Amino acid sequence: MNIITISREFGSGGRELGKRLADELGYDYYDREIILAIAKSQNLDESYVEQAMDHSMWQGRPLTYRRSFTSSVLFQAPQTNFLLEQKRVIEGIAGLGKNCVIVGRNADVFLEGQTMFHIFVCADMEARVRRCIERAAEGEHLTRREIEQNIRRIDKNRARNREIITDNSWGKGTTYDLTVNTSNWDIKELAPAVAEFAKCWFGRTK
Amino acid sequence: MNIITISREFGSGGRELGKRLADELGYDYYDREIILAIAKSQNLDESYVEQAMDHSMWQGRPLTYRRSFTSSVLFQAPQTNFLLEQKRVIEGIAGLGKNCVIVGRNADVFLEGQTMFHIFVCADMEARVRRCIERAAEGEHLTRREIEQNIRRIDKNRARNREIITDNSWGKGTTYDLTVNTSNWDIKELAPAVAEFAKCWFGRTK
Repeated sequence: MNIITISREFGSGGRELGKRLADELGYDYYDREIILAIAKSQNLDESYVEQAMDHSMWQGRPLTYRRSFTSSVLFQAPQTNFLLEQKRVIEGIAGLGKNCVIVGRNADVFLEGQTMFHIFVCADMEARVRRCIERAAEGEHLTRREIEQNIRRIDKNRARNREIITDNSWGKGTTYDLTVNTSNWDIKELAPAVAEFAKCWFGRTK
Repeated sequence: MNIITISREFGSGGRELGKRLADELGYDYYDREIILAIAKSQNLDESYVEQAMDHSMWQGRPLTYRRSFTSSVLFQAPQTNFLLEQKRVIEGIAGLGKNCVIVGRNADVFLEGQTMFHIFVCADMEARVRRCIERAAEGEHLTRREIEQNIRRIDKNRARNREIITDNSWGKGTTYDLTVNTSNWDIKELAPAVAEFAKCWFGRTK
């Protein structure tokens, strides 16, 4: 079983790349399904779970416990429950034994030991703002400054969420197997290139 | 004309990847040739030039002039001369109009505006130390601690050398088009994968 995990900067096109990569390779694809499963298990609204996991800052974070996820019971609820549930859901996906692409949710950390290919997707601020504007929901009219603020805030939270469970820094080259800068790509053209690279990765002898 | 530039962490196998990539693609390859050309033009010993550029710290660096390379005459000689000569040599290589791979020397900064693909090569410390031990010159018996110190010192200098001439941070994902972590690759197997990716890059429509 091959698992591709995708971590991404907000607005970099990581989700689209993951979806297209799954299509190219004929893999299953998991993204919002993880949030849905957590919401269901906790009997909570999906958007509440997403908001709590992605957008709110963590409180009472005991830094000395970074290396020990199981010690995280000291974290404040409900985030702790969500993290434990997230781990359970991601392990459940891996337990299905099927090739898949998992976007976000620190799947690379929770699944250590599996046959995995870890990708980080980034882009310069200009490209990310452009992408956010192109994909804004109808009626959403944020200024460029507000979009940039959103991008920085979400990325900061992603980095912090990761910091709680691992020492491998979010966004650092050696944390992943491949880091792709999408600034100068059409994701449609990038996906086959990354798919070929992933095939080489899973086929290597080392 | 396609130019691939390779920046790399010391011990990550970036030079070997560059050489193999050039072989795979039938491109010219430049690495020590740049040092040689600078040494010749300055009538200096090759190893002296390399030492001065890679291993010594820069003195009197006027931080306010980071964005303006041409203002760098305020830097202390001989490093200033070397940087100017390096720029001239790299521009000369591009002027030949042939597809090529250039390893190191901040070629990506000096050649802005060309059709280029920028790669950063990294690896975790364990893999880099192992590589340094495997490739140590005969009679060289550094301890693991000394090797790690060398790696950190050389990388620090590479980052600082870059900082003088550009605002794009050394090693940051968005500074390059692709970042490859070689820790779990045999470079022989990695080179064809990167070559295929590069072909997609140069063939893209965006």
